[in-house]
Amino acid sequence: MFLTRTEYDRGVNTFSPEGRLFQVEYAIEAIKLGSTAIGLKTKEGVVLAVEKRITSPLLEPSSVEKIMEIDQHMGCAMSGLIADARTLVEHARVETQNHRFSYGEPMTVESTTQALCDLALRFGEGDEESMSRPFGVSLLIAGHDENGPSLYYTDPSGTFWQCNAKAIGSGSEGADSSLQEQYNKELTLQEAEAIALSILKQVMEEKVTPNNVDIAKVAPTYHLYSPSEVEAVISRL
Amino acid sequence: MFLTRTEYDRGVNTFSPEGRLFQVEYAIEAIKLGSTAIGLKTKEGVVLAVEKRITSPLLEPSSVEKIMEIDQHMGCAMSGLIADARTLVEHARVETQNHRFSYGEPMTVESTTQALCDLALRFGEGDEESMSRPFGVSLLIAGHDENGPSLYYTDPSGTFWQCNAKAIGSGSEGADSSLQEQYNKELTLQEAEAIALSILKQVMEEKVTPNNVDIAKVAPTYHLYSPSEVEAVISRL
Amino acid sequence: MFLTRTEYDRGVNTFSPEGRLFQVEYAIEAIKLGSTAIGLKTKEGVVLAVEKRITSPLLEPSSVEKIMEIDQHMGCAMSGLIADARTLVEHARVETQNHRFSYGEPMTVESTTQALCDLALRFGEGDEESMSRPFGVSLLIAGHDENGPSLYYTDPSGTFWQCNAKAIGSGSEGADSSLQEQYNKELTLQEAEAIALSILKQVMEEKVTPNNVDIAKVAPTYHLYSPSEVEAVISRL
Amino acid sequence: MFLTRTEYDRGVNTFSPEGRLFQVEYAIEAIKLGSTAIGLKTKEGVVLAVEKRITSPLLEPSSVEKIMEIDQHMGCAMSGLIADARTLVEHARVETQNHRFSYGEPMTVESTTQALCDLALRFGEGDEESMSRPFGVSLLIAGHDENGPSLYYTDPSGTFWQCNAKAIGSGSEGADSSLQEQYNKELTLQEAEAIALSILKQVMEEKVTPNNVDIAKVAPTYHLYSPSEVEAVISRL
Amino acid sequence: MFLTRTEYDRGVNTFSPEGRLFQVEYAIEAIKLGSTAIGLKTKEGVVLAVEKRITSPLLEPSSVEKIMEIDQHMGCAMSGLIADARTLVEHARVETQNHRFSYGEPMTVESTTQALCDLALRFGEGDEESMSRPFGVSLLIAGHDENGPSLYYTDPSGTFWQCNAKAIGSGSEGADSSLQEQYNKELTLQEAEAIALSILKQVMEEKVTPNNVDIAKVAPTYHLYSPSEVEAVISRL
Amino acid sequence: MFLTRTEYDRGVNTFSPEGRLFQVEYAIEAIKLGSTAIGLKTKEGVVLAVEKRITSPLLEPSSVEKIMEIDQHMGCAMSGLIADARTLVEHARVETQNHRFSYGEPMTVESTTQALCDLALRFGEGDEESMSRPFGVSLLIAGHDENGPSLYYTDPSGTFWQCNAKAIGSGSEGADSSLQEQYNKELTLQEAEAIALSILKQVMEEKVTPNNVDIAKVAPTYHLYSPSEVEAVISRL
Amino acid sequence: MFLTRTEYDRGVNTFSPEGRLFQVEYAIEAIKLGSTAIGLKTKEGVVLAVEKRITSPLLEPSSVEKIMEIDQHMGCAMSGLIADARTLVEHARVETQNHRFSYGEPMTVESTTQALCDLALRFGEGDEESMSRPFGVSLLIAGHDENGPSLYYTDPSGTFWQCNAKAIGSGSEGADSSLQEQYNKELTLQEAEAIALSILKQVMEEKVTPNNVDIAKVAPTYHLYSPSEVEAVISRL
Repeated sequence: MFLTRTEYDRGVNTFSPEGRLFQVEYAIEAIKLGSTAIGLKTKEGVVLAVEKRITSPLLEPSSVEKIMEIDQHMGCAMSGLIADARTLVEHARVETQNHRFSYGEPMTVESTTQALCDLALRFGEGDEESMSRPFGVSLLIAGHDENGPSLYYTDPSGTFWQCNAKAIGSGSEGADSSLQEQYNKELTLQEAEAIALSILKQVMEEKVTPNNVDIAKVAPTYHLYSPSEVEAVISRL
Repeated sequence: MFLTRTEYDRGVNTFSPEGRLFQVEYAIEAIKLGSTAIGLKTKEGVVLAVEKRITSPLLEPSSVEKIMEIDQHMGCAMSGLIADARTLVEHARVETQNHRFSYGEPMTVESTTQALCDLALRFGEGDEESMSRPFGVSLLIAGHDENGPSLYYTDPSGTFWQCNAKAIGSGSEGADSSLQEQYNKELTLQEAEAIALSILKQVMEEKVTPNNVDIAKVAPTYHLYSPSEVEAVISRL
Repeated sequence: MFLTRTEYDRGVNTFSPEGRLFQVEYAIEAIKLGSTAIGLKTKEGVVLAVEKRITSPLLEPSSVEKIMEIDQHMGCAMSGLIADARTLVEHARVETQNHRFSYGEPMTVESTTQALCDLALRFGEGDEESMSRPFGVSLLIAGHDENGPSLYYTDPSGTFWQCNAKAIGSGSEGADSSLQEQYNKELTLQEAEAIALSILKQVMEEKVTPNNVDIAKVAPTYHLYSPSEVEAVISRL
Repeated sequence: MFLTRTEYDRGVNTFSPEGRLFQVEYAIEAIKLGSTAIGLKTKEGVVLAVEKRITSPLLEPSSVEKIMEIDQHMGCAMSGLIADARTLVEHARVETQNHRFSYGEPMTVESTTQALCDLALRFGEGDEESMSRPFGVSLLIAGHDENGPSLYYTDPSGTFWQCNAKAIGSGSEGADSSLQEQYNKELTLQEAEAIALSILKQVMEEKVTPNNVDIAKVAPTYHLYSPSEVEAVISRL
Repeated sequence: MFLTRTEYDRGVNTFSPEGRLFQVEYAIEAIKLGSTAIGLKTKEGVVLAVEKRITSPLLEPSSVEKIMEIDQHMGCAMSGLIADARTLVEHARVETQNHRFSYGEPMTVESTTQALCDLALRFGEGDEESMSRPFGVSLLIAGHDENGPSLYYTDPSGTFWQCNAKAIGSGSEGADSSLQEQYNKELTLQEAEAIALSILKQVMEEKVTPNNVDIAKVAPTYHLYSPSEVEAVISRL
Repeated sequence: MFLTRTEYDRGVNTFSPEGRLFQVEYAIEAIKLGSTAIGLKTKEGVVLAVEKRITSPLLEPSSVEKIMEIDQHMGCAMSGLIADARTLVEHARVETQNHRFSYGEPMTVESTTQALCDLALRFGEGDEESMSRPFGVSLLIAGHDENGPSLYYTDPSGTFWQCNAKAIGSGSEGADSSLQEQYNKELTLQEAEAIALSILKQVMEEKVTPNNVDIAKVAPTYHLYSPSEVEAVISRL
Repeated sequence: MFLTRTEYDRGVNTFSPEGRLFQVEYAIEAIKLGSTAIGLKTKEGVVLAVEKRITSPLLEPSSVEKIMEIDQHMGCAMSGLIADARTLVEHARVETQNHRFSYGEPMTVESTTQALCDLALRFGEGDEESMSRPFGVSLLIAGHDENGPSLYYTDPSGTFWQCNAKAIGSGSEGADSSLQEQYNKELTLQEAEAIALSILKQVMEEKVTPNNVDIAKVAPTYHLYSPSEVEAVISRL
């Protein structure tokens, strides 16, 4: 099966006879190997929660950043290649800062997401900002702007969707089913925190602690929970 | 069969011994995997209708944009790779804005379509605006200018045709036959809405709701139907 | 047979051991798949006639442009990839406009043809105007300048010839024989119209109507026939 | 035999293990497929004569240009790819005009030939003037300068030789033998015309007419014979 | 097993069907062939210790630099290709000097590490600073800034982690286990020196001497131990 | 044997596992196919002698230039691809003219040779002056400068040596042996002429005449022998 | 064994699955084919000695330069491709001259060595100064600066080491063993000369003469021994 594929997937950005772009599909595979991340939108704001794989007790947990701030009113959780994600986040930070400087107001969450996807789409084209391969990362972008709270999901093809709730990474299949069962639009932020963490707990093979999960909210500004705040959510489960 | 092909389709823009461009043909395959979109031209204006595949109940239906505004007097429906379509639409928006700014009048629908096709034709040439592969998307461009309402259809080879009615995407074959049976030049806009939706209904495997279809008209300005307006059309069927 | 060829035709612009350029030959094949076009030179002017393949009754026949104006005194009929032809015609239009602007007089038909062939020859060289493959199109260029009426024929290799009459496209073989039988230098423009259309009629598998053929003349200025003018020629047959 | 070759001839400009440049050798093959051209140097001036292949009676014989003027005192006959030859001749015309403009005197025939060969040698190097493959054409350059009349022969490798008489193209082998038999340095221009035409007659498979041969002389200025002048030479045979 | 791999790892920066980047994984192999390096963070500062492979008694031990100063408040130990490491360190030195010049204060350790990883991530992209392959080196970056002492670990994928203690190179597996056993956050700098050296001693196959190990500390400024200072630590074991 | 080679010699400038550069070795083969050239240094000056292959009696012998002047005090004999040699000589002429203009004195023979070899070494690097393959030519550079007469030998790898006597081309092996037997440092220029010609005579398969050999000397200025001067040397044999 | 290798070594700068860079390893092979060179550092200065392979008695021994001056206080011996070495030495000369001009003091030996290795590391990156393959040469760089005498050894990977004594080239293995036996830090320059020459004598298959070895010292300025000075060292053995 792979033999016939390989005729088409060596060129980074070439269609197969069935009209598929294999390099993009393989990049999506990279994300399925990544740690699980979950996002939920409530009327009060958006909650992001991620699993952190701490491979050694000597690693500083806070340096494994899988949730990052983009701007005061926006943050994102990631799954896949962390170095790729950092490049995307750095790009988004520059875009949102430029927007604030030029227009004196925050960039909307959708515009920021679109800017990230433009960069992701242009891989293999040899200009300065683009990569020579697809970005091997998916993002859950949480934000709050003039349209209220919103949650976006991007994949390596440069496509994005707006969601009420979404899971990405190795445990995303099970997590997505749980989200569909437990999600409703009337959730409070506190309930959303608890749902996110309880679902992460199911997909992780170890006990949930402030060391191996991160939680953040945008409500309406970005805030990464301190270990004690995470501990508080855990204790509420 | 694929074995002999592969000698010619690895170069993105190379003729086969029979004078064919395989990468363009494969990009056309990508569109056959896409959701169905339908356009009808009437004397009162043009109607566009698309199927939206909502893979999860947690997805925000309004964020699955398969019909987009290009300018006040022009919009388009798309089938294929959404990220590619966004790049094309963004290009068309810049072109039409520049035209308004330079000449103080709207760009004609044909000129806009030609500008999109020029970009689509130049893939694989390494300059800044072009892609390194064909754009994997077809567009139905609906507009209204000094020549009245018009509907254009573009494909990944950079060719375009003016049509009275046209369907693209996975259900296009059946939908095109139905259009030929039901279309006539004396249709009202209301009748065209009903025909478009009834044909979409045939090719979609689920019940038509305001969540899984989008309708827009250019008559003479672009207008995307609200869920209740879509609901009204559905109830008329 | 193709096996040994493929060693040489993958490079877009490489000689085979027999001194052949396969990509150019394959591009010529693309033209043999195209619709038929015919040109005849008379003392009164030049006539162009083309078959238009209208694949669907919902297609707007006037949007299938296979004859295009280059300048007031020049037009061309085409066979092969339409998007490629549009690029060439656009190039010719810019050249002739620049010439008028710089020298205050129309560009000669031969100079315009040479300019088109220079562009066609330079494929695969990576500069901005050239294509990364041969242009898959042949043109019949009809014009009228200080040397009187003239008809040129170009092919994908960038070579051109001046002709009294010439057919290109899928039906060109039979059409060329008919032209040799029926052509003489004393034809009137009216007789040439009739010959062109009667030959097209032979090679087309359907009835000739104003919808599926286009006729134009340069005598001494370019004029594309209206449906009723085409109808008049048909009725004269 | 071709199997081992193909390892080395795919790169346009790469040595084989035996120290050969196959792409150049293949380009030389392209010339062996071309029409025959002959040049003779006399004390009075140089004569060029070429076979013109008129594939259709509807072709304008004068548009099949196989002898072209470079400057008032220089012209050339060609065999091989005509579009390539036109590029070379255009380059030579610019060089000789620049030389006249800069130095107020005609460029010598050897310098012009050297300039053409410099361009031919640099194929595959990606700069603006050079081709991405060897030029598939040989030239016989006839001229008259301060050193009297001279005749140069160039091949696709960028090498040139000065000759008293030389034939190129498909019939060159037989024509060269005939030239060696019949040439002597005391020939008059009239005798040279007759020899050239009688040899062309031998290698062409049809009757020689003003339509299928061209003759030109540089004595001391370039002059292309009119049909009646050609007719006169034919009648002298 | 390698056969299927090789379809994907020839392109320097291409995903395999499982979503892996083989060139990066192979570069990580290069580090497993390198000499062992160890870093430990204490409250008083950070200790770095490396094995130096002196292949010949005629080599000047001090010229085998496996620990290098980046700035007054930062240094790094390396394992893998030394020439690659020098390029990275040189880049970091320029960045930190520029930062001091522009802002009048030292660059933080995390920003410096991020700058190094940005360079490492962009391999294969053809711009001036980046390499055409991944950097075949891992670094342990020790520093002291406004956040106190810190230790970072980078790998060829451009990812970095903050650690309390970390070993890299051929002996890293055993060394990491020993570090986990012996490390605690209350270690003094002197204890950390002893632990680092005793672990190096286990993984090296020869006697530890001032000639075949290097030790440095950042507490709070970078200091490379002299042979006698190393001797002193050895004697304390 | 060629099968394993071809893995490494397709890249124009790539080492084989044994540390060899095959394209350079193949270029050296091209020289073994070339005509023989001989150089001898005496205290009075340097003598160059070459075989000229006159393939047709209609070729102008003087246009087969295998010995060329570089500057008043320097010339060279060549074997291999003549078009390549002309490029090198043209480069050397520009260098020596620039040197005279900038410093008011002739360029030394060694500096000129070094400049030629710098150009030869940089093949395959894509800048403007360099070739995309090795230069397929060897030169014997004869000159006279402040250090007296000197003779240099260059090969396609960009290496050069100073010699007392040296033969290159197809007959170089036998010629070199003869030179070692007959050369001594006390030769007069006249004796050197005779030795060079008698050795050429051995390796050529035809009678030596002023038409098929060229002789030049630098003593201390460059002088190419006239046919009668060559005749005189022949008659002295 | 080569079969699996070739999958990875065709890209000039690509890791193999084991983390190796084959093109660099092959370039190191090129050096093992080179002539032997030896360097020894004493307190009085550094001695360099090389074997010169004089393939023909007609070659001028002094033109086979395997020891070259870089600056007054620095020189180097080389083994491998001489043309590559010349490029490196020319680069070093420009660097040291620029340094003297900019700072008014000599460049240190380490900085010069680092500059050479930076150039060597960047092969395959397409910028102007770098080569398209590794430099196939090793250098022994002898110098004297503010830190006293020093001897550096560089290899094609761009790595360098400081040594007390070192041999490179085809006889390096045996020569290195002899150096380890005979070297001590208290050697005088005269003793070092004798050791270097006696070791060269062992690895060379012919009698040592002033014609087939070169000796140079940096003590503290660069001096290449005249034939009589070499003769004197030989006679002391």
